[in-house]
Amino acid sequence: MSIRIALCQINPTVGDLSGNTEKILSFIKRARKKAVDIVVFPELATTGYPPEDLLLKPQFIEDNLKSLKQIVDGSGEIITIVGFVDRGEGLYNAAAIISDRRLIDVYHKRHLPNYGVFDEYRYFVRGRRFPVYSINGLRFGVNICEDIWHEHGPARIQAMNGAEMIININASPYHMGKISLREEIVRKRVQECGVPIVYVNMVGGQDEIVFDGGSFVLDENGEVVVRGRQFKEEIIYVDIEVMAKGRTAGKRRAGLSRMLRDDESIDNVRVPWKPRRGRVAIKRSMARLLSGMEEVYSALILGTKDYVHKNGFNGVVIGMSGGVDSSLVATIAVDALGRDNVHGIFMPSRYTSRESYEDAFTHAENLGIKLLTIPIDGIFRAYLRSLSEYFKGTEPGVTEENIQARIRGNILMAFSNKFGWLVLTTGNKSEMSVGYATLYGDMAGGFAVIKDVPKTMVYELCKWRNKKEGRALIPERVLWKDPSAELKPDQKDTDTLPPYPVLDPILKAYVEEDKSFREILNMGCDIACAQKVISMVDHSEYKRRQAPPGIKITPRAFGKDRRFPITNRYRSY
Amino acid sequence: MSIRIALCQINPTVGDLSGNTEKILSFIKRARKKAVDIVVFPELATTGYPPEDLLLKPQFIEDNLKSLKQIVDGSGEIITIVGFVDRGEGLYNAAAIISDRRLIDVYHKRHLPNYGVFDEYRYFVRGRRFPVYSINGLRFGVNICEDIWHEHGPARIQAMNGAEMIININASPYHMGKISLREEIVRKRVQECGVPIVYVNMVGGQDEIVFDGGSFVLDENGEVVVRGRQFKEEIIYVDIEVMAKGRTAGKRRAGLSRMLRDDESIDNVRVPWKPRRGRVAIKRSMARLLSGMEEVYSALILGTKDYVHKNGFNGVVIGMSGGVDSSLVATIAVDALGRDNVHGIFMPSRYTSRESYEDAFTHAENLGIKLLTIPIDGIFRAYLRSLSEYFKGTEPGVTEENIQARIRGNILMAFSNKFGWLVLTTGNKSEMSVGYATLYGDMAGGFAVIKDVPKTMVYELCKWRNKKEGRALIPERVLWKDPSAELKPDQKDTDTLPPYPVLDPILKAYVEEDKSFREILNMGCDIACAQKVISMVDHSEYKRRQAPPGIKITPRAFGKDRRFPITNRYRSY
Repeated sequence: MSIRIALCQINPTVGDLSGNTEKILSFIKRARKKAVDIVVFPELATTGYPPEDLLLKPQFIEDNLKSLKQIVDGSGEIITIVGFVDRGEGLYNAAAIISDRRLIDVYHKRHLPNYGVFDEYRYFVRGRRFPVYSINGLRFGVNICEDIWHEHGPARIQAMNGAEMIININASPYHMGKISLREEIVRKRVQECGVPIVYVNMVGGQDEIVFDGGSFVLDENGEVVVRGRQFKEEIIYVDIEVMAKGRTAGKRRAGLSRMLRDDESIDNVRVPWKPRRGRVAIKRSMARLLSGMEEVYSALILGTKDYVHKNGFNGVVIGMSGGVDSSLVATIAVDALGRDNVHGIFMPSRYTSRESYEDAFTHAENLGIKLLTIPIDGIFRAYLRSLSEYFKGTEPGVTEENIQARIRGNILMAFSNKFGWLVLTTGNKSEMSVGYATLYGDMAGGFAVIKDVPKTMVYELCKWRNKKEGRALIPERVLWKDPSAELKPDQKDTDTLPPYPVLDPILKAYVEEDKSFREILNMGCDIACAQKVISMVDHSEYKRRQAPPGIKITPRAFGKDRRFPITNRYRSY
Repeated sequence: MSIRIALCQINPTVGDLSGNTEKILSFIKRARKKAVDIVVFPELATTGYPPEDLLLKPQFIEDNLKSLKQIVDGSGEIITIVGFVDRGEGLYNAAAIISDRRLIDVYHKRHLPNYGVFDEYRYFVRGRRFPVYSINGLRFGVNICEDIWHEHGPARIQAMNGAEMIININASPYHMGKISLREEIVRKRVQECGVPIVYVNMVGGQDEIVFDGGSFVLDENGEVVVRGRQFKEEIIYVDIEVMAKGRTAGKRRAGLSRMLRDDESIDNVRVPWKPRRGRVAIKRSMARLLSGMEEVYSALILGTKDYVHKNGFNGVVIGMSGGVDSSLVATIAVDALGRDNVHGIFMPSRYTSRESYEDAFTHAENLGIKLLTIPIDGIFRAYLRSLSEYFKGTEPGVTEENIQARIRGNILMAFSNKFGWLVLTTGNKSEMSVGYATLYGDMAGGFAVIKDVPKTMVYELCKWRNKKEGRALIPERVLWKDPSAELKPDQKDTDTLPPYPVLDPILKAYVEEDKSFREILNMGCDIACAQKVISMVDHSEYKRRQAPPGIKITPRAFGKDRRFPITNRYRSY
């Protein structure tokens, strides 16, 4: 039997119940025109993901159930599978199975992720029932996200109970290489279950995370049948041939009961279905997989665009210094929002070099954006005058450097307040890790675009973008001159930090991989250097706690993904 | 049989494995001198609570096990019960039972809290074994914190298996009235189990939370036998008379097996014990319960003191405006740190009133602290000059107000950077809720002392403190003049906000109790006013995300206790 499925990889907004409902209904309408049998939406499509503590508000749950009702009423006879929040002994991360304008059944997620950026045990209780649905003799199971990552999990239980196909709905956040990890895991489930698996993912940016779409279907041999685009909202249509196998054999059922915990059960639910008329051929979608810098860059664009738009801003403002970080951020902003919505401000001081000036203006011209100049020296002198009585006899140092950075922060925020532009900060992950940044200075702003991008990758991204452009969109000199904060004479980042190609691998080992001091030394790292770096990371937690959110692109970002105490006397070296 | 127990309500520091170990050993030494049979320490005493993602570092777990080894080796023949992190199929929140320099047994916490400020499912797996220990015929059970909050939980299981006493170790965070809630819950367990319960709590501040001590023992009738002081590190000694009841009867054991899940078990463990010699009488401790403002004020003092000291600061700096918030914070700081370690800065502008000036200086004199004056108008003019070209034709407004607040933030941070003082911010919970504060301005600083104190309570605290002093330590006028940010001519908080006695109950209902819009209106609240307040709360999440941590004193504080998306289009009105 051939069944036509529409994978709706939509971009909902957290909390926008009515907007999300409208979007879902409009996708159902589109799918109906293609004579689709089953239309599938992501996990928590009604609420967006993650709704966080909105889930603790009873009114929010109620309103989400009203949204579901609207979807049920508006779905027509098409079978609709959609994520929502169900209510019972507690809250459930749930999938509605709708047909013929009726809510036929609800599946509750069994495996609740509570690691990394996830907090699902904070809100949900686990599901304990693993139904198999049948339409016209075809049997299939539905489950949710994390469920598919577990061996002997819901998919296996459903397959053992005769499911000939599994539909898995997701809100699976992006990090580099995640898509191949997903395919690998789902392929294992195919091998375990012997049936095709339909994997539908969400798309869009939500605060720190980006859902990258890339929905796919694996056939019973583990081959990719269709693949949706990454980072784009779309419908993917697929016709799946499934062999009806009938009910579970007695022997299989015995094995099944051993897989269920005491409080868990299986059952079978018939889903009303009418043959679709007027079915025309559909185009088979097989999106090209992005890779390397193209993938990361796409994540940064979508994350930035969605943060700015979903929060209702009409434009952004960026302090452009002529350095590589702000050059990359301005380029991403223009690619995400269009040149008319990006405003640059160049804020030279007595320490700003001619090269910085030239590079910032050349780059702004290449991007086609306006770059205002506001020198900060007059304001800086006013501060020094006011403080001179109390700072008399002290050596100028970090204090005076920070005052300059904070003047720039204040100016950017003044433009933000005056014109309603969001300030994008330009700090990279290497800086955020070691605290090489000024709180309320260059850290001041609403969104930290490249917060999770190590400095060495900042260069790679710039090079990739220039190559794509076929010319030096970002001036070549920006990519080879020594990085400097230009907050005192002849300053270089390497006065304070090891060179980035040395620093970044240590940071990856320590921050992302929880390597021990010994393991880090075994990487060939100098003892003093490793100690210094680890100590800097440990001592900058207070800065990171006050940093704006930014886009997660690595397996472990700062923010919800890495939760450290500020008060912390542990030293691993 | 009479058994002597020492409840060690210690103040560990998160991550300070060697410091905590030394502290534990020194308390054991003190207890030994009193011929104590069992010495009891709080939950996760080796690591401090909560260690958060330090727990994901294998080296940290290893080091904590080394600490436990030192405690075992140094404990002598005294029976020691101490919280630590155990390792097995996963990590366990564990209690070591040590006797005669041997680790006799380990109990694993069954009920892992994952709500409010807690994230225990992120780190731990639940315990499945509920042993009963016997010394010289006396049988007792040990369990951990949340375990005691559950009916038919570990305490009941242990009692049914013949435990004649329960020892429950805790790291239970403070909020107003929590101590009576705890006694009430533990009394229910006494009624359920029919045995005395020893409740040992941690004490001390850790970032946003304060552990308030107040350890206690309830006898088998639910009467308080001893009670430790709140907010103070101490040892409480108690002699408990327990009636040895012998092993579990067969009938009871049948009921017991019904209470256990499939994978759970009970057993009995003999603990070596030698009669203590030279036992002298001990003083019965029955600390007075603090109440109302005295309790809150004590929490604020301990939270501030521990944050400052545990993070290695030698002093603090506070922007004193002559308003009630900064007056309260300066008073708390002096009470917590001593006058020599508190530095005030008065930063007048063209909008600062004579009253503000007088009140700030009178108060500083009363406190005996130095108050520097740094006018901000020169700097403000320098900003306006630099921005004039671009802001020409616009009306002065929030932008210009924020510039002033951010100049003050920059000045305070300059003193922080120059002299190593921590900046204490002075915003209260009402302001934090509605976003009536300037990011990087008055919100700039390391610790937000009264972040969880509603404005109406700020007044109550000041009045209580003045009453305690027996004079107007905080000038009377501060307590009755209209609150104003003094950022434009004749500004009053009520230009923007409802009066605080109207605002605060709405905020409590919406922020702390998740009340619906309808329920808030039913409180007798004006529709427009409720909408405005809710909208302000919803739209300030981005500010709160960048706010410094502050001390939790209510059932729900901002920070880890309330996790909201910034990107959030949900409107409950």
